Amino acid sequence: MSALHAALRQFPVLDDCLHLGGITLTRLAERVGRTPFYAYERCHIQSRVALLRDLLPPSLQVHYAVKANPMPALVQMLAQLVDGFDVASGGELKTALDAGMAPARISFAGPGKSNAELRSAVAAGVLLHLESEGEMLRVARVGESLGITPRVAVRVNPEFELKYAGMKMAGGARQFGVDAERVPAMLRKLGGLALDFQGFHLFCGAQNLSASAICEAQRLCVDLALQLAEAAPAPMRLLNIGGGFGVPYFPGEKALELPAVAEGLHGLMRTLASASPQTQLVLELGRYLVAEGGVYVCRVLERKLSHGQVFVITDGGLHHHLAASGNFGQVIRKNYPVAVGNRMAAGPREVATVVGPLCTPLDMLADSMELARVEPGDYVVVFQSGAYGLTASPTAFLSHPPPLEVLV
Amino acid sequence: MSALHAALRQFPVLDDCLHLGGITLTRLAERVGRTPFYAYERCHIQSRVALLRDLLPPSLQVHYAVKANPMPALVQMLAQLVDGFDVASGGELKTALDAGMAPARISFAGPGKSNAELRSAVAAGVLLHLESEGEMLRVARVGESLGITPRVAVRVNPEFELKYAGMKMAGGARQFGVDAERVPAMLRKLGGLALDFQGFHLFCGAQNLSASAICEAQRLCVDLALQLAEAAPAPMRLLNIGGGFGVPYFPGEKALELPAVAEGLHGLMRTLASASPQTQLVLELGRYLVAEGGVYVCRVLERKLSHGQVFVITDGGLHHHLAASGNFGQVIRKNYPVAVGNRMAAGPREVATVVGPLCTPLDMLADSMELARVEPGDYVVVFQSGAYGLTASPTAFLSHPPPLEVLV
Repeated sequence: MSALHAALRQFPVLDDCLHLGGITLTRLAERVGRTPFYAYERCHIQSRVALLRDLLPPSLQVHYAVKANPMPALVQMLAQLVDGFDVASGGELKTALDAGMAPARISFAGPGKSNAELRSAVAAGVLLHLESEGEMLRVARVGESLGITPRVAVRVNPEFELKYAGMKMAGGARQFGVDAERVPAMLRKLGGLALDFQGFHLFCGAQNLSASAICEAQRLCVDLALQLAEAAPAPMRLLNIGGGFGVPYFPGEKALELPAVAEGLHGLMRTLASASPQTQLVLELGRYLVAEGGVYVCRVLERKLSHGQVFVITDGGLHHHLAASGNFGQVIRKNYPVAVGNRMAAGPREVATVVGPLCTPLDMLADSMELARVEPGDYVVVFQSGAYGLTASPTAFLSHPPPLEVLV
Repeated sequence: MSALHAALRQFPVLDDCLHLGGITLTRLAERVGRTPFYAYERCHIQSRVALLRDLLPPSLQVHYAVKANPMPALVQMLAQLVDGFDVASGGELKTALDAGMAPARISFAGPGKSNAELRSAVAAGVLLHLESEGEMLRVARVGESLGITPRVAVRVNPEFELKYAGMKMAGGARQFGVDAERVPAMLRKLGGLALDFQGFHLFCGAQNLSASAICEAQRLCVDLALQLAEAAPAPMRLLNIGGGFGVPYFPGEKALELPAVAEGLHGLMRTLASASPQTQLVLELGRYLVAEGGVYVCRVLERKLSHGQVFVITDGGLHHHLAASGNFGQVIRKNYPVAVGNRMAAGPREVATVVGPLCTPLDMLADSMELARVEPGDYVVVFQSGAYGLTASPTAFLSHPPPLEVLV
């Protein structure tokens, strides 16, 4: 027997139908007015933040990484729940400011910020994560021309890697941040420029499901930052240790043990309180806050047989949900958790392959998966779809209309 | 020594600078007004069609598959050059009709056409490629409700595979078309419905660089169609044998030997003229018409060192050109042909990795490639980018502005 998907209990099932935001999926689909659509559940996201607040040290700041899901209504809601936003472009900066987040609580990271983006960020007064010496010089010039002292942190590329990360973003040669060994020299130069040094940013990798690997990386991050802070031109007031908390997508994956990560963070806060009491520790979470509260919903157009295999053909696919199709960072394609939202419990089941309307074999939402036997009009639901879904997808591919997004 | 990219001679180099559409790349970038952008060259696309007309049998129809590049100006130009359009969605149908292509010369294929799309296509009077018996029944119902007899062809999923195709789309269990063995029974049903049978569509696979494999697949397609036509309710007036002509993207790939393919097609036309003189043969080409005439252009923001490796950081990347980043159908990432468009011949060279502005290691346009040594402001050019570029990319990812497209 092959490995199974982790059990998904975030949405209740009543009368064979998935419920989201307190109503049945079939009624929600009527409310939205057309398929496909993404739905994100307020209540799940609120509970996730509440769980973090409950377990994590009270003085640890939790930021939301807007790139995970920049839907304005969702960002607006999160502005009331978290301590700050991290943005990755001028567009995300606008979204964050429009949502009412105070500029002092916004940080801007990214290896390729344009001069226009730097100018806008300095004018807004947000914290800039410097990814290179070249960028430091550009930021200083922008600050000079605007008559504003830019607030900056140095993004460090540490020597160590984050073990078991779905995507490694540190260790070895990288486009992200400044190699740790070059940071002291950069800090000396920084001290001579009209820049307001705030601290450091370290982000080792994304989508990690191992609590021990996350704890170890966080400890190494804090140790390295404390060491680098000795060469800094001003006290380290902020330390952003990234996030990287994963969610289970594929068969065999297990949910992250949050209590173990929280325990590690309590210890780190004590270390930091004694070694550098003025430093505010920041955790930056994107996927972990929003992925599990979101679903992608499409509708069955046809059930078709080819050489004895069942193909479920839907109106949604790769163009709306590239990651679920297996074409975004996966080497070997694996199935996201998928179900028939109006046939959650009862009725016959069969092994089927769920595909979309595109003229490419890449357009697949589930490969030979056991599902309820569908009829045209049924709703196929892709779970774990609240992060890196719509905006990470080629919506214009084959000129289909874009899906809608709702916050329920 | 590792394999090299096929030589690209489609654009002249004058004074160290690439020329497109008769002007220098640097001047073109000023004309466009911002980077990144896609540029497609009229003259190259016209020459490509002229070459095909020169080599292929005169009575063979050449269609353009709009999905390869639906930019309206480009589609408008191709409407004057080719014999018909193939569309894959209601959106592409609109583009094709807006470009002035006669509905009689438009065909609509795709495994998941919605009822709204079928209705619109029947109303327009275009040819519908039926991908299943279920779709046949839906089309008949639409025709009945509109009082129009829909023009239809049957898309066949043959037993054979297209060897060496970059993407196989036939043979075995598939979402595309009707299994060959089920076609005769379907044709009998079709004869009893108010449908105007026109012929068959067979599409075995895309991105093939082997002339012999293409010739063999085309021969098998014609043989199969002639055999299936015996069970048809009306003479086979049309036979669309797809396209699948590839272009060289990666090191070691060689351009398709078009004369060999043309020779095979001359033979096939003779076979068809004798066996089924009323049948019009259609070749459906997308990528082969437009890929090589297009480039993606982005600008260097910074040149950065990390652990001794050179990173060229640009304002363009994965969000504009997913295929070049290696995240669209590739299992092992390979480099597209890339050059520094304003340093094409002279000056020092170095091995560099070209990345974009996104906060993900997937955002890479060239991995450890020998390039001219860049300075900020230089133009990085990705060749072979006229097909499946912009529309196959997640443009909203990280909320950067979309790139522009120009036809020059």
